[in-house]
Amino acid sequence: MARVVKKFGGTSVADLDRIRAIATKVKAAVDAGDQVVVVVSAMSGVTNKLVGYVQDASPLYDLREYDAVVAAGEQVTAGLTAIVLQEMGVDARSWLGWQLPVHTTDAHGLARIEDIDTELLEERLNQGQVAVIAGFQGIGPDNRITTLGRGGSDTTAVAFAAALKADRCDIYTDVDGVYTTDPRIVSQARKLDYITYEEMLEMASLGAKVLQTRSVELAMRYRVPLQVLSSFSDEPGTMVVDEEDIVEQAEISGIAYSSDEAKITIEHVPDRPGVSAAIFGPLADANINVDMIVQNVGPEGDSTDVTFTVPRIDMDRSVKVIKGLEDELGYRAVKFDDHVVKVSVIGVGMRSHAGIASKMFATLADKGINIQVISTSEIKVSVLIADEYTELAVRALHTAYKLDAA
Amino acid sequence: MARVVKKFGGTSVADLDRIRAIATKVKAAVDAGDQVVVVVSAMSGVTNKLVGYVQDASPLYDLREYDAVVAAGEQVTAGLTAIVLQEMGVDARSWLGWQLPVHTTDAHGLARIEDIDTELLEERLNQGQVAVIAGFQGIGPDNRITTLGRGGSDTTAVAFAAALKADRCDIYTDVDGVYTTDPRIVSQARKLDYITYEEMLEMASLGAKVLQTRSVELAMRYRVPLQVLSSFSDEPGTMVVDEEDIVEQAEISGIAYSSDEAKITIEHVPDRPGVSAAIFGPLADANINVDMIVQNVGPEGDSTDVTFTVPRIDMDRSVKVIKGLEDELGYRAVKFDDHVVKVSVIGVGMRSHAGIASKMFATLADKGINIQVISTSEIKVSVLIADEYTELAVRALHTAYKLDAA
Repeated sequence: MARVVKKFGGTSVADLDRIRAIATKVKAAVDAGDQVVVVVSAMSGVTNKLVGYVQDASPLYDLREYDAVVAAGEQVTAGLTAIVLQEMGVDARSWLGWQLPVHTTDAHGLARIEDIDTELLEERLNQGQVAVIAGFQGIGPDNRITTLGRGGSDTTAVAFAAALKADRCDIYTDVDGVYTTDPRIVSQARKLDYITYEEMLEMASLGAKVLQTRSVELAMRYRVPLQVLSSFSDEPGTMVVDEEDIVEQAEISGIAYSSDEAKITIEHVPDRPGVSAAIFGPLADANINVDMIVQNVGPEGDSTDVTFTVPRIDMDRSVKVIKGLEDELGYRAVKFDDHVVKVSVIGVGMRSHAGIASKMFATLADKGINIQVISTSEIKVSVLIADEYTELAVRALHTAYKLDAA
Repeated sequence: MARVVKKFGGTSVADLDRIRAIATKVKAAVDAGDQVVVVVSAMSGVTNKLVGYVQDASPLYDLREYDAVVAAGEQVTAGLTAIVLQEMGVDARSWLGWQLPVHTTDAHGLARIEDIDTELLEERLNQGQVAVIAGFQGIGPDNRITTLGRGGSDTTAVAFAAALKADRCDIYTDVDGVYTTDPRIVSQARKLDYITYEEMLEMASLGAKVLQTRSVELAMRYRVPLQVLSSFSDEPGTMVVDEEDIVEQAEISGIAYSSDEAKITIEHVPDRPGVSAAIFGPLADANINVDMIVQNVGPEGDSTDVTFTVPRIDMDRSVKVIKGLEDELGYRAVKFDDHVVKVSVIGVGMRSHAGIASKMFATLADKGINIQVISTSEIKVSVLIADEYTELAVRALHTAYKLDAA
């Protein structure tokens, strides 16, 4: 007997036929003797529709009301899934975020789970009842519904797996696992059997939209064995595990890219102590997440050019913040560009393999692609390039690191 | 300053433009210094869609899960209405059934409100905040969402008006008041300025679908002044009030009809003590609501024919119950007919006016309409006739009682 959490995304519960299909998977696990917790998203399209209503109602909407509105989607799916399971003879009941409850912070719209009361759930699981949890939602200290941000049902699933000390957390989606890169760009992309938490975290935050980043962080912290697999097949997916659980580690596990970036350059800033703080302090105050940063000494030696990237949707706001600092900073010009893409090679193997970065630079140079900004971490190298080179760069790197399927 | 509850039905909140229109009405009341509680239904069509999902999921669905699913509709409207009010500069917040909470019985799908905790609400109303209540829902003793049956938001509104000792409860709908009869059948039908609780109760339970019957019962018990009016105009509607508040009372206030009836006749039942109990006990046990009953002594004097009506949807079930009693009762035959309609004349005035019933019978006889069953109460006379005479009968009665518009 194992205890498993199974999370089904929006396309897996898009209509009643799909819900019946996933219920069949749940029943199979129950029949095999497993204790099963099901976490469901809203039917595909529903959350977008509800978010659209809210945005139409007011451009500056109250996030507490936003949460009440959008959480309704998962509520519907949870109830329907419980009914379908019961119809198949499986003992099941739905649980909404406020019912257990799932306690979260008060950051409406992007709350974090703080604590899950699992006492009642443990009791029911031990009696053989399947718990169908409405994903994405909890209850804040103000006794109002909170939501966890888009993709939040992944985090709900992992949080329950951690709280219930589940043997495995299966994330069912419309792809059959994690790939070495986006198969829509590289037809030679391969499904990975294993990937480490650290790599998955980089993949998720660098644009591979398989899992919500926070869910991977949580899985890593609590060492929840995670599986990403398709709800439309019975094939095993990709296991996200500890590094020591992977016998043979390749240099590089995957190539990710993200088009959600914009580049801003402040030219000819007088080079004096405190200038970085004067730039990035106000951006942080405006809640803008700065990612890559480079600073070059200018030709005259007394000034510097500062280049950084921000989320594309924050570009205009960022430029406005910088223009407001013109008198204080005394720079010459602000330039901005949203025709950029961040391409990253990721792999825990690079800790023990030299030359990963230089191979990347050489491969891109060979294709005539100019690198605008570079940033590195222990397990990834990212470069910012013009977005017209996206496919060319990703394909060349996939081949260079020997990731192409045989 | 008055304290008012304003309830808006599904067509009044069908989309964001409609929600903006009703929010304008709410703002006008707030600007005039009123304390306002808004009760909203689901957007029109949403509840039917959710009920359809549930029925598709399982023919014998768990009513607790049904409640979780269908309550989502009002949750969405409540949040959106609060946002739209805020956008207009009105302080507002949404409240879901479980948040105050609205305590109900555990009869999922058709729960009754037992108690509303209004402490927090009173506080907010006194601070000038508009409360937007998700109608139709509450929380049961099992800590799960309950719903109050179709049309339940009317009952939510009246229950809040009673609990908050509101000065008035306005029920906004897509018609501009209560009419002397269905204007689709009688073009001469007139809008009533006033109607008594007792009459409204008969109208509601006899097929005039303006208000949920239970909401009228509740308004009558707590003497909540109720107004039925259109959300699409600014005209006053129909006030539902105490009898003593109506200066000049007509003999008859209205003509109602209901096609939701079916007639069952048990022929030649041996006439012995306890036979009625033997018939109607098992029907009650099967949760079938018997309405009109007549019993005639048969020609031989030792047997009787029993005729009664049941809701049309329960006809087949009722016949089955009666057939199961064949050995015990020893009757000759069971006949059933769902091509019947119940037509009723209603008015508290008939207490002090003689000849109301005989005028009804004469009017119908004059048109050659055969009366199959009669039942009366203090303020109404109902007859069961063949449904092909519906329009003819309603029009003739409307004229006979001088209800036609001048």
